[in-house]
Amino acid sequence: MPQVRRVLETALYVEDLDRAVEFYERVIGLGALSRGDRLAAMDAGEGTVLLLFLRGATASGVSFEGGRIPPHDSAGPAHFAFAIASGELDSWRGHLAIEGVEIESEVSWERGGKSIYFRDPDGHSVELATPGIWRVF
Amino acid sequence: MPQVRRVLETALYVEDLDRAVEFYERVIGLGALSRGDRLAAMDAGEGTVLLLFLRGATASGVSFEGGRIPPHDSAGPAHFAFAIASGELDSWRGHLAIEGVEIESEVSWERGGKSIYFRDPDGHSVELATPGIWRVF
Repeated sequence: MPQVRRVLETALYVEDLDRAVEFYERVIGLGALSRGDRLAAMDAGEGTVLLLFLRGATASGVSFEGGRIPPHDSAGPAHFAFAIASGELDSWRGHLAIEGVEIESEVSWERGGKSIYFRDPDGHSVELATPGIWRVF
Repeated sequence: MPQVRRVLETALYVEDLDRAVEFYERVIGLGALSRGDRLAAMDAGEGTVLLLFLRGATASGVSFEGGRIPPHDSAGPAHFAFAIASGELDSWRGHLAIEGVEIESEVSWERGGKSIYFRDPDGHSVELATPGIWRVF
């Protein structure tokens, strides 16, 4: 059977697209790949893309010249994680403090990795994780 | 400022963990990295992880020896995408047909990439995408 290469796109559903884009640019340092009324696509590194969808705006699907994007939508404070380098955890703690983002929790994993958790403006639980969490990272 | 490397973990919230794990193993070919009552972590390739959370089971957070994982939860048919190789799109069409998974939609992108969309057992909109969609893929 054919194989997937990796997760390419990860989606968050947000109440205010400007606010979300500003947060992921300023606090996380992502750059926008595209920006529309219903979607901002952010370059999340190493060929991964963080999609910020305006809540409700994609519930009907979208047809255009190239085809049809099926409907989707979601509510609630979801979770996702960014990989960071082992040596950058302290640097991230300092950067988040300067940006006024409170660290909600920290976790030390059996394999030696460490995670810090904080909330984005929509209450999504964002994790920054160092290597030593999964067999594959 | 410090930089994130990539999106490491992408989460889906599902009604039936066994059903979701079976689907992502059989149809997508992912292997499980860990499996519990509230979470299955699937190896999604190239250092990315697909987290399948039982809906409602993570709404209170989890404390353990290593620290505390903050609460999160989500409802609704969300979207995410896997990267696939350009030459494997037809192979995927055939494989999905054999597995009885209906392709809901196909899209051709301006940069030359192609996407196919189908639903997982929870109604999440799963995309398989070839290179030529974003500047970074």
